[in-house]
Amino acid sequence: MIRTAILGASGYVGAELLRLLERHPALVPTRLFGDSKAGQKLGSVHPQIGGAVAALEVERFGPEALDGIDLVFAALPHGESQKIAAGILDRGCRLVDLGADFRLRDAADYARWYGEEHQAPALLDRFVFGIPELHRDAIRGAQAVAAAGCYPTSAILACKPLIDAGLIDPASLIVDAASGVSGAGRAVKEGTAFNTVDGSYSAYGLLTHRHTAEMEQELGATVLFTPHLAPMTRGILATCYAAAAAGEMDGDEPLRVLRQAYADEPFVRVSDEPPSTKWVAGSNGAVVTARYDPRTRRVVALGAIDNLGKGAAGQMIQCANLMFGLDESSGLAASGVFP
Amino acid sequence: MIRTAILGASGYVGAELLRLLERHPALVPTRLFGDSKAGQKLGSVHPQIGGAVAALEVERFGPEALDGIDLVFAALPHGESQKIAAGILDRGCRLVDLGADFRLRDAADYARWYGEEHQAPALLDRFVFGIPELHRDAIRGAQAVAAAGCYPTSAILACKPLIDAGLIDPASLIVDAASGVSGAGRAVKEGTAFNTVDGSYSAYGLLTHRHTAEMEQELGATVLFTPHLAPMTRGILATCYAAAAAGEMDGDEPLRVLRQAYADEPFVRVSDEPPSTKWVAGSNGAVVTARYDPRTRRVVALGAIDNLGKGAAGQMIQCANLMFGLDESSGLAASGVFP
Amino acid sequence: MIRTAILGASGYVGAELLRLLERHPALVPTRLFGDSKAGQKLGSVHPQIGGAVAALEVERFGPEALDGIDLVFAALPHGESQKIAAGILDRGCRLVDLGADFRLRDAADYARWYGEEHQAPALLDRFVFGIPELHRDAIRGAQAVAAAGCYPTSAILACKPLIDAGLIDPASLIVDAASGVSGAGRAVKEGTAFNTVDGSYSAYGLLTHRHTAEMEQELGATVLFTPHLAPMTRGILATCYAAAAAGEMDGDEPLRVLRQAYADEPFVRVSDEPPSTKWVAGSNGAVVTARYDPRTRRVVALGAIDNLGKGAAGQMIQCANLMFGLDESSGLAASGVFP
Amino acid sequence: MIRTAILGASGYVGAELLRLLERHPALVPTRLFGDSKAGQKLGSVHPQIGGAVAALEVERFGPEALDGIDLVFAALPHGESQKIAAGILDRGCRLVDLGADFRLRDAADYARWYGEEHQAPALLDRFVFGIPELHRDAIRGAQAVAAAGCYPTSAILACKPLIDAGLIDPASLIVDAASGVSGAGRAVKEGTAFNTVDGSYSAYGLLTHRHTAEMEQELGATVLFTPHLAPMTRGILATCYAAAAAGEMDGDEPLRVLRQAYADEPFVRVSDEPPSTKWVAGSNGAVVTARYDPRTRRVVALGAIDNLGKGAAGQMIQCANLMFGLDESSGLAASGVFP
Repeated sequence: MIRTAILGASGYVGAELLRLLERHPALVPTRLFGDSKAGQKLGSVHPQIGGAVAALEVERFGPEALDGIDLVFAALPHGESQKIAAGILDRGCRLVDLGADFRLRDAADYARWYGEEHQAPALLDRFVFGIPELHRDAIRGAQAVAAAGCYPTSAILACKPLIDAGLIDPASLIVDAASGVSGAGRAVKEGTAFNTVDGSYSAYGLLTHRHTAEMEQELGATVLFTPHLAPMTRGILATCYAAAAAGEMDGDEPLRVLRQAYADEPFVRVSDEPPSTKWVAGSNGAVVTARYDPRTRRVVALGAIDNLGKGAAGQMIQCANLMFGLDESSGLAASGVFP
Repeated sequence: MIRTAILGASGYVGAELLRLLERHPALVPTRLFGDSKAGQKLGSVHPQIGGAVAALEVERFGPEALDGIDLVFAALPHGESQKIAAGILDRGCRLVDLGADFRLRDAADYARWYGEEHQAPALLDRFVFGIPELHRDAIRGAQAVAAAGCYPTSAILACKPLIDAGLIDPASLIVDAASGVSGAGRAVKEGTAFNTVDGSYSAYGLLTHRHTAEMEQELGATVLFTPHLAPMTRGILATCYAAAAAGEMDGDEPLRVLRQAYADEPFVRVSDEPPSTKWVAGSNGAVVTARYDPRTRRVVALGAIDNLGKGAAGQMIQCANLMFGLDESSGLAASGVFP
Repeated sequence: MIRTAILGASGYVGAELLRLLERHPALVPTRLFGDSKAGQKLGSVHPQIGGAVAALEVERFGPEALDGIDLVFAALPHGESQKIAAGILDRGCRLVDLGADFRLRDAADYARWYGEEHQAPALLDRFVFGIPELHRDAIRGAQAVAAAGCYPTSAILACKPLIDAGLIDPASLIVDAASGVSGAGRAVKEGTAFNTVDGSYSAYGLLTHRHTAEMEQELGATVLFTPHLAPMTRGILATCYAAAAAGEMDGDEPLRVLRQAYADEPFVRVSDEPPSTKWVAGSNGAVVTARYDPRTRRVVALGAIDNLGKGAAGQMIQCANLMFGLDESSGLAASGVFP
Repeated sequence: MIRTAILGASGYVGAELLRLLERHPALVPTRLFGDSKAGQKLGSVHPQIGGAVAALEVERFGPEALDGIDLVFAALPHGESQKIAAGILDRGCRLVDLGADFRLRDAADYARWYGEEHQAPALLDRFVFGIPELHRDAIRGAQAVAAAGCYPTSAILACKPLIDAGLIDPASLIVDAASGVSGAGRAVKEGTAFNTVDGSYSAYGLLTHRHTAEMEQELGATVLFTPHLAPMTRGILATCYAAAAAGEMDGDEPLRVLRQAYADEPFVRVSDEPPSTKWVAGSNGAVVTARYDPRTRRVVALGAIDNLGKGAAGQMIQCANLMFGLDESSGLAASGVFP
């Protein structure tokens, strides 16, 4: 039994972690932290949570609350983890952080994209970037993992093998992605009200979305990224465009490269057909595909995930499974909730 | 390992069974049957299904295909199970049937509501009505279970304790329920097209919906039932109205009766607040509540389930768990997929 | 040209009024009032509004702002109209108020259902209840109209002819209705966030919803009313149940009564089939139907409207058309936006 | 009064034409044609249509049926208009065709993208491409107009001024667009079933979508186009990417070019913020915006329309208004149905 604390338990990622841990053989939610709902029973914060865990109380976080805790999942607004990570790591806890705080290796990148100085740059080297398909071995040995953002996970899984294989020009990458509304978190605002979003598709964060930095770092690319909000709760589809790097190739060559790269992965499927986000809803799965267009000499690559699954809680658990030497798939579903 | 066959594997209930069995410790999907998709790999019929099971082939059913099978889940159009149930039972398989064929104890009721004579009335006595909260002991000893319909499950769970406690007049029951579109199955038709349903709420089957018969049988009541189609994929909420049976009572008396009835149930939660269908999406949970209105001397009782979970695949697995002496919760989630 | 002011211009009803007035031949939006958005251009408050009106500024209301105004549409939270109605009427403006303040004839009813004393009971007699199909002549001569609530409009249109014809027992009426989320207004809250509502159907306001009072007043009935929130932006369907008042009748008798009652109405259609809310989306239409069930001796009657159309802005304009002697259909659509 | 016939009256575009013509001062729907629903009353084919037109019968088309008809709106599957256009034009009717048949000036382009020889290439010169903002004068004098496709309309409106002004390299254009499901028409299929689409975002027609040809023709560009299906009924947003054509420019330079180009247009609004498709739902409006990214030296341009409005029925009526010398805005709304 691995005693697990969740920071940000009252948010959507917290809810998904708790749902998944209901069926996990080793990770046991033991302490739940959340500022705005502190003092309430979990069952009133998340009425969808059944079972014994619903009786736990959401607490206000303090480092002393981690006594006896083996693992901390942090799902906090960016900037918060930097303030508390040292205290968590010093107690010997393992930490999987979903914030943006420790994803960028270079503190200057953090300052540039997030508009503020990093408060704990000395800790950056202690974190491994949390996409197991890219950094599995490093995650296995890590005390601290910075789980990737949702948009980056979808785009990186679709494009990394194509860049590694030299098929596409990394200086030419465009990522056009659509996300479900849960990606915006639980805080209420007019932009995510039902009446605003229902029947509506829109772009936001033109040219400046912070997830660009993660994509550029992990892909070694220059990325123009446009996120969109789609009228659905969960799911991300990244549609990526890049110039072909070299001479002619067969239209299916990118697909073959993806198949080879992910042949042994338990959670990444390669599809002939463009995937639907719904194929992976509620799961830790990702589906990717790609095609070369000889007419325009460009490659199109697509990646679909559930932003709360492989894009958040699922990937956090997958990383934790590796860190504790468990079966990497423990507590995780490969099949989507469909329809 | 319990070797499990699924009849109707290419439909929505088949998909949900397969998703749930991915995480089940004992039931293993071994043979998959489905007429319209026979010959295709499961992965192309259900692209959301990951893992090894995706490589299984969907077959055309014949009784000989059940050699070595311990358990049959049947999710077929009504009328189909009657034709094959004897063959399945004679081979010694246990059978959980989701069709309407064996739910009504009296073949005359079947003829009245379904408009055709029952083809296997002699088998009716061998089936137990499949709501574990009502018939747990009988299910434990049964070879054959007729899992309840989705609408009846939601209404029966909300009303049965109130009738048993003598709080409401069973001759006065009105059930007004809304269902997600997956309840209509996978066959394509204009009435369930996205453009028809999106932004649309409507009633159907006025006065004549066949699920009325199940509610009347299990509740010992006369029921006026109006089903509605809501613009969502999953979920049923039944809002039930009945005249108070006796003299005055406290407004919360029905709530107390529900709490007592379901105190030890792993999947039925009693809520102070009216439940949302989303609290139980993707789970086997049910949430019920009730209130007495002294002004009109009526009781309102509500029950929410996922029509594909507690209303279909989840309940089928819960029944099978009981039939095989497994932990009743094996492979089933109490927590909903939220948001 | 009828110079028209809108109070509550920045809300959803304000938006719908402005959209409809774009095509109205006589009513011209001249002054727009709204507290929270005062000082902003309409085009930034409602980016969906095109044309010249988008350049108007939203102002903070003061009675002097009504100089030269012929007609005031008020779409304010309940309790607000009572404070300002006298000032508006004293200036000679005609007033169509959508608030609840002047709908109930008896100030005691207001106090009972709204939990506070009415501030202007002396004005109650000057208001006509605003459903033209019931009170057309009175509306024609009125200076002030209290347009009906959305839920009451749908239920009253479905049931009134049946009560008038003596078909149903008014003491036994149950109204079970589902509304789109726009009925909750533009203020942001977690209960109407996209992630909360998408894929979710739920009841609220059990036993105590204030619209009950309007239904009881206009129908002369005792009503148990349960509102539900459906995952759609617009639309209300009321499904109404009542005991048959007298002896046996033909199953279609209620339908014939509705056909006769609404034969000459431009906006009420009587349908053989149960209506979908989408048939009337964006329009001022209502669709009703009804059936008698000899088995349970009850009548089921259904009414569908767009809560922002016939349930709000459309009905307000229909009333104003009558008050000013215009064609009753001016600026109003009978056809729904479909799909 | 302009006597108007609609071919394809039972489809979605037919429905939208009929809804809009309810409020049109001159165009009167006189004959309605539709094969699959021939012989039915319009009111049963389109229950959302109110008013007198609902009593019209849908007929099977034959050229003699056009006696006395001034204007034909054709909304047919591609390939159908070619067979009947000559007959329509020879009778002296004006024709606005929404099919793809007469949009491409070069019959070879038609053959290449549609995979079949054009059956009436001699007629191509008689058709004007139907986007009034590009070809207003030619439309005014035309007997026949080929109204643009929905995707092309959104992308062309966003990009044409930028190409004309020399800001972007037309050889580098990528169009990534999302459409509501009504764009797929009324024919039922699993891909557009509610259960398939709800909660789902997906790409389709990779590299080969036929609307590419229209975009290339009207923009004089090479286009890589990826259409997506979003879980909403109406709306298209095109997000377009292109390399900057020349040296550095200010980030807002593309926005200024759009503002200048559309300053006098009644239906095209230029927005600082990225538009939502919902701003234009049910209207004939389009909203465009654009930005230059100095970091990647690319321009992003966005265009939002209602695929059934400015992308189909609205644009058809706008063209017809021009052809008959009416006010270009007759019967058309600039404001969207919101929320």
